[in-house]
Amino acid sequence: MVAFSSLVLTTASLLTLTTAQTFQRLGACPTLGCVLPPDQADFLAGQYFDIRLEVHAPVNGSEANGGVPDPNFTFSIAKAGGSPQPAASFFKIAEPALERWNFTWYEDLFAVEAKTPSVVRVTSKAYRRVALYEPGEYVATLSYYNGTKTVANWLVRPLQQQKKAKNVILFIGDGMTTNMITAARLIGHKSINGKYQTKMQMDKFPVLGHQMTHSLDSYITDSANSASALYSGHKSTVNAMGVYADSSPNPLDDPKVETIVELLTRIWGSAIGVVSTAFIADATPIALTGHTRLRSQYGVLIEQSLRGVQNYTWTKYTGADVFFGAGAEQFIPGSGSFQGKDYYKEFANAGYSVSMNKTSMLTAPTNQKALGIFCTSNLPVWLDRNVYKNNLNLTNDPSGNKKAALDLPGLKEMTLKAVDILHERGGDKGFFLMSEAASVDKQMHVLDYDRALGDLLELDDTVNATIAKLKQMGELENTLIIVTADHGHGFDVYGSADTKYLSSKADDREKRNAIGVYRESGLSQYTVSNASVSYNTGVNFPVNWDPRYTLAQGTGAFPDKRENYRVHKSGSRVPAVNITGKANDDYYVNAKDNTDGYIVNGTLPTNEAQGVHSLTDVPVFAMGPCQELFGGVYSNIDIFFNMANCLGLGRSSNATGGNNYTVPTPTVSSLPATGAAADPATRAQRGLWFGMIVFMASIGWFAINL
Amino acid sequence: MVAFSSLVLTTASLLTLTTAQTFQRLGACPTLGCVLPPDQADFLAGQYFDIRLEVHAPVNGSEANGGVPDPNFTFSIAKAGGSPQPAASFFKIAEPALERWNFTWYEDLFAVEAKTPSVVRVTSKAYRRVALYEPGEYVATLSYYNGTKTVANWLVRPLQQQKKAKNVILFIGDGMTTNMITAARLIGHKSINGKYQTKMQMDKFPVLGHQMTHSLDSYITDSANSASALYSGHKSTVNAMGVYADSSPNPLDDPKVETIVELLTRIWGSAIGVVSTAFIADATPIALTGHTRLRSQYGVLIEQSLRGVQNYTWTKYTGADVFFGAGAEQFIPGSGSFQGKDYYKEFANAGYSVSMNKTSMLTAPTNQKALGIFCTSNLPVWLDRNVYKNNLNLTNDPSGNKKAALDLPGLKEMTLKAVDILHERGGDKGFFLMSEAASVDKQMHVLDYDRALGDLLELDDTVNATIAKLKQMGELENTLIIVTADHGHGFDVYGSADTKYLSSKADDREKRNAIGVYRESGLSQYTVSNASVSYNTGVNFPVNWDPRYTLAQGTGAFPDKRENYRVHKSGSRVPAVNITGKANDDYYVNAKDNTDGYIVNGTLPTNEAQGVHSLTDVPVFAMGPCQELFGGVYSNIDIFFNMANCLGLGRSSNATGGNNYTVPTPTVSSLPATGAAADPATRAQRGLWFGMIVFMASIGWFAINL
Repeated sequence: MVAFSSLVLTTASLLTLTTAQTFQRLGACPTLGCVLPPDQADFLAGQYFDIRLEVHAPVNGSEANGGVPDPNFTFSIAKAGGSPQPAASFFKIAEPALERWNFTWYEDLFAVEAKTPSVVRVTSKAYRRVALYEPGEYVATLSYYNGTKTVANWLVRPLQQQKKAKNVILFIGDGMTTNMITAARLIGHKSINGKYQTKMQMDKFPVLGHQMTHSLDSYITDSANSASALYSGHKSTVNAMGVYADSSPNPLDDPKVETIVELLTRIWGSAIGVVSTAFIADATPIALTGHTRLRSQYGVLIEQSLRGVQNYTWTKYTGADVFFGAGAEQFIPGSGSFQGKDYYKEFANAGYSVSMNKTSMLTAPTNQKALGIFCTSNLPVWLDRNVYKNNLNLTNDPSGNKKAALDLPGLKEMTLKAVDILHERGGDKGFFLMSEAASVDKQMHVLDYDRALGDLLELDDTVNATIAKLKQMGELENTLIIVTADHGHGFDVYGSADTKYLSSKADDREKRNAIGVYRESGLSQYTVSNASVSYNTGVNFPVNWDPRYTLAQGTGAFPDKRENYRVHKSGSRVPAVNITGKANDDYYVNAKDNTDGYIVNGTLPTNEAQGVHSLTDVPVFAMGPCQELFGGVYSNIDIFFNMANCLGLGRSSNATGGNNYTVPTPTVSSLPATGAAADPATRAQRGLWFGMIVFMASIGWFAINL
Repeated sequence: MVAFSSLVLTTASLLTLTTAQTFQRLGACPTLGCVLPPDQADFLAGQYFDIRLEVHAPVNGSEANGGVPDPNFTFSIAKAGGSPQPAASFFKIAEPALERWNFTWYEDLFAVEAKTPSVVRVTSKAYRRVALYEPGEYVATLSYYNGTKTVANWLVRPLQQQKKAKNVILFIGDGMTTNMITAARLIGHKSINGKYQTKMQMDKFPVLGHQMTHSLDSYITDSANSASALYSGHKSTVNAMGVYADSSPNPLDDPKVETIVELLTRIWGSAIGVVSTAFIADATPIALTGHTRLRSQYGVLIEQSLRGVQNYTWTKYTGADVFFGAGAEQFIPGSGSFQGKDYYKEFANAGYSVSMNKTSMLTAPTNQKALGIFCTSNLPVWLDRNVYKNNLNLTNDPSGNKKAALDLPGLKEMTLKAVDILHERGGDKGFFLMSEAASVDKQMHVLDYDRALGDLLELDDTVNATIAKLKQMGELENTLIIVTADHGHGFDVYGSADTKYLSSKADDREKRNAIGVYRESGLSQYTVSNASVSYNTGVNFPVNWDPRYTLAQGTGAFPDKRENYRVHKSGSRVPAVNITGKANDDYYVNAKDNTDGYIVNGTLPTNEAQGVHSLTDVPVFAMGPCQELFGGVYSNIDIFFNMANCLGLGRSSNATGGNNYTVPTPTVSSLPATGAAADPATRAQRGLWFGMIVFMASIGWFAINL
């Protein structure tokens, strides 16, 4: 029962929408009336979206108003200068049914500590799959409580229907910052008297920009939310993708926004490719087709990636042409897969070739849809696949036989194969490929700087090889190539560390004197070949990962940790562990990590075992058709609008908008039906239900980072 | 005597060129024969430079070769494809005299600890004020020890003599990174549902680039070295500006390179402006005209800024048209000024108007050269000048009367006045202005994030006002405007801090739980107006510097510190202090700093009282003529070459190269004559001499950061 209630507890923190420290009852809903999409939302002309209205009646807490939510609210929309029309007639759809539920939130940390949640009663309506076809400004007005109004100003961006790029390849270095690129260059590229003898491929891109990554309702984003902004042009809430987060109990009924992959499928029927070194149900790959407030709904998300959204009227989607990554847990029949089904079979039945190792992937037919799932969890990182190969002895075979998956592709092999398939299947309709270097982020989270930078160099090598391949195919001029990130980590290099001197000292303060700053940082030793080190990793990777003088590097946000600035030869780093036996909320430095290093106490809450994301704008490198759109500084949603405009995805009418379908009655998995009244009891049940997901997700998974 | 010997000690660490942890006897000199400028050096056609040759004979240590340096070395230069000529005949100058000296260095930290320096005997020659006029590759070869060769490959960049921009304004946010710009935007600009309602001026620039800031011989730079690269196109060594660092005892005889200010004066006679919020002898402003290996030669550097280099044949320079900043120590007659002279008088005698407060600066004649020195040390920061004004009660009056300087200009007032003067004095010849926000760096060093971001916002406000002024003058189209930095600090924001909750807890681990990450970071509270806070600071600055929910922010490199994430209302932060009484080499957390915060032990050597510079590439924002040259990723020296090409400063002959002069015999200050043999005894004397400089510099100066 302890374990049980702890599950419910875990859940509560997942379900409670607004523990945001700055008093948000619901993100994007500062008043008691909520309109989603909210004020300031931008749309592509003809882009599908849902509308969610909520009227809140706080029962207790600082906003208590009697606890009776208005069931008679009205909602109108007006084109700027025009007169307001009731939404149903504006969109020519039936008036949706009224929904009711309750939710709770905490007003601040003192309330969390005192376990005194604020209860809110809600009346709500949802308008499903509507679109705005005429560019310009719109005013959406919710009226409630006898005349109170919440106004949302919406903008439909100018229309560009002409297709300027045949293909788009979007490379995402998850969590990759300019600072990390600088460090990767230093260890991977030789320099003489301050002059690099080679450049990163990214350095050679003609256009550079910066994108702002913050969320709708918090200035630090996660990868679901930021990926969603890149793919749909709509910022959302942490853990949400393809939707605006509402306050309803159901994490699969939140108001959706159409993604670039759905648009491209609907408008042009182009080929779609998804490649990642993460488990493929992870936020960055799955947000291309996922619509949920709760990124941990891995099973449902894989189902959505194959058959599209099923529980509400939405655009039709029948699966990507290429789907390469890891995370066999959602494919092996059983607890991790949707409704326990065998998703290798589900994909095969849908016409996919299925590869479970590199050899079979390389020989997969290029005229057929291709699924490639190469191991459980995430793909082992470049450093382990190429240098410290003993670390591959895991129980991660994608069949689930608990053997080691050793015939593994890297990001480069997956991406180049994807291009072959997409080029053939896309034909004149072209293709869209998202290729993610996921472990730049995952390894930064565990403060394993070497593994993160290794995978960043693998990304650069992949971009380089992809450009060469497109050139040889004659497709380079037709292809917009973007290399960017979804958020950052506050990483930088501040000197060198004399690892010999550091380990020779006993005292922690003396060990710190091994760090050389400014002139004493000296020159990179990672590019100086060393007889004791020899492995064939191609050009522009370090030739020595374990020099005496290493990079003194790190972030400003970390759990308790011990640093010795040396590569972790025996596997990925685990900086902090829970040694007190309490539930996951009390991490101390890992006694087994960097045993000859010095301890630094953390700068994060003690329930954080890892580093966290940071605020910084991240770089955008662009080349090809429309490259000029990507210079300067802009919001992450502009990446979507620039890609969509370059692909001519805007529409002034739904004339071309076929390829849709309608589900008569919402049904999905075992969740309570949308709009069911939610009292504390059923809330606890849902708690258990989600708790199970969380629990399932927490077994057999490592490095599932935000 | 204790104090005395400690001075010599301080000195030694200053003088010893190569304690670099990666075994550098002399930067850019991997073999026993050294050619400066070294291999891979780039030149502007017609740019003046000196050549220094050294042959090293290590007496002891790992390289010991008998200790007899070759006096008969030869040096030749060949244009690629051509035949080598002896340098003297190649440049048509007399063969210089042979010089001899000794120097010592430490091979690693163990050698420093054991006090076992390696002694090196040196033979050397210097070729003064030569130039390469023909673009292309050159091979410079030093032959010594009967046939051993050190080869330097030099490149003279392609010639562009056409002037495309009439004016250039170079804004430098010292230490400013993309991460800091992102944080400044968050506290200074209002956002609704993830959409900023205003942008930074920098965000509006049409072209964005990244520059690599590393040194010639270390991957972390200081501001002297990096400023020198931006101004001369030559990377150098930490603490050096306008020279390549040699191993000779004299810090004023190192081989020089001509700066953009010297070139512009010689070629076009344009007006020159220097504006900084730092003491004006600080690296970033003074490197425009300074030539020394040792940035702490403040007095000599002010003399060079007025009359140019005096001790060797060089280009003639007679002082900037505008010279605005702080640092009265070098102007008040006495220990801080060159040869004890009154430099207010020296500048006045040279035709300058002299302003010592804002009022007099604003009324200074625009047709006359202008000196403005507004206080001792650095200018108080924007936050103290505008919000916490009680902190202005200092003893920093520029007259030296120990009263408070209260009539202070900010960066904006200084820059706009400079533009007025430069526009009038430059006339058709145009002008060059460098305007530095120095305390972004200085405040980051002391981990005072609020003061650093305040000065970053002041820089952005200054850029905005300058663009408006140029437009109104009709000069905007004629002016290349660049906003960049010289290096970074590894700063980022990783969440919010509930300062109320943090201070309510007693235990350090409990205090850490006040930090909200991801969704819990919430929204910026700095833009939410607060009745208790009202001051007129114009738009796009925070309206509340002291909200309950502040930014959780920091760097990865710091001394022992205590964090509470609140603004320091009573003055700039002092994170660590020397409490053990040992010489400046043992810093612990300052018991008076952030008393309600939690302690984090440092990640830097225990002799570092402050944060340090970092590796990251820094942003470059460009608009105006030649803006297209500044996109993408490149070296910091390319900023010089791009500006020089845009100003048409390259020359294919010395026909236009008048305006030079020759000094018959080298003489400067009280230093030993160049080339004097240096034995340990005279070494110690020099030690004392430098010790005095260091000592002088260390009194009455705070925040003299690298």
